[in-house]
Amino acid sequence: MTTLRLPEWVDGFLPAPGMPYPTVEDRMELAVELARENVERGTGGPFGAAIFDLETKKLVAPGVNVVVTSGLSIAHAEVLAISTAQGVIGSFDLGGKGRPPYELVTSTEPCAMCSGALLWSGARSLVCGARDEDARAVGFDEGPKAPRWERDFEERGIAVARDVLRDEAAAVLRHYAEGGGEIYNARRSGP
Amino acid sequence: MTTLRLPEWVDGFLPAPGMPYPTVEDRMELAVELARENVERGTGGPFGAAIFDLETKKLVAPGVNVVVTSGLSIAHAEVLAISTAQGVIGSFDLGGKGRPPYELVTSTEPCAMCSGALLWSGARSLVCGARDEDARAVGFDEGPKAPRWERDFEERGIAVARDVLRDEAAAVLRHYAEGGGEIYNARRSGP
Repeated sequence: MTTLRLPEWVDGFLPAPGMPYPTVEDRMELAVELARENVERGTGGPFGAAIFDLETKKLVAPGVNVVVTSGLSIAHAEVLAISTAQGVIGSFDLGGKGRPPYELVTSTEPCAMCSGALLWSGARSLVCGARDEDARAVGFDEGPKAPRWERDFEERGIAVARDVLRDEAAAVLRHYAEGGGEIYNARRSGP
Repeated sequence: MTTLRLPEWVDGFLPAPGMPYPTVEDRMELAVELARENVERGTGGPFGAAIFDLETKKLVAPGVNVVVTSGLSIAHAEVLAISTAQGVIGSFDLGGKGRPPYELVTSTEPCAMCSGALLWSGARSLVCGARDEDARAVGFDEGPKAPRWERDFEERGIAVARDVLRDEAAAVLRHYAEGGGEIYNARRSGP
């Protein structure tokens, strides 16, 4: 049995349940704050994400990267947010009939794995902070992604917004790297 | 909290622990049998996978697709096998120093998400049964993959073997589809 668990601080860190996040910047601010706090608390890599209900503009599920602390390479922020949200709604398909549109907000553009995870999640839109190149600049590996990966999403009905609070999000990546944070997933060839 | 759990029948279905699987066909046979049994038992989609220790040739962790029964879109066979194996060895990196080489065997070539998951897993090799086109032929969506995706793996030190027991593996896909099995993940545009 495998358990994906958010760090204990997350519950107390979130604003009161039911608070709306009216703008895309409000929603990204939460993702970036989750990333920053995850670094400060030492619970994982500098990545935060969240799923929002776009009808109510309310938070459905947060996510942070817990790869190292959980011992699971799939435990990226987007995977935590998507899986937690699916647990909340009780379905593997956030895009099922009768559902409101759900949005995935992520502090850094999704890696190759999380891009696939988003496709299968049923979320209808993606909002990104830092770019792939910001993550690569500090040593993280985003994996092989198509040069115009956002088109693959758009073609499948998933709207994409990029560079939302990019500077703030990229600053968290740099802060982590400068603090000597572990850059895992960076193996490029066998030892 | 999100829980990825193998179906209850899996433990009883596996041969005695410690039995070696000397050849790549032996190892694929297990993945295909897991896929077939998963369909027969009604516990998920027609996909099986496993992680093997290539020094001992022993099974480390099995995986089957439990997307529908778990309510989680990430719950592909490869994700279950990788995560379970990481739990067994107690590390997010199957390729860490001092580890034997680990192999991911999957009854169908990995989708876009699972291709990324494999990259981050630390496994050193990939063995595939049915091809992407066999999955697509019955309606499954493998997601956007590079035309020569196996090169991305090889460049990162992950050896790839394809078409191992392809016919047997593809037969499980067809059997599932002909039986009216649910083809999820097949949304191509918003409703």
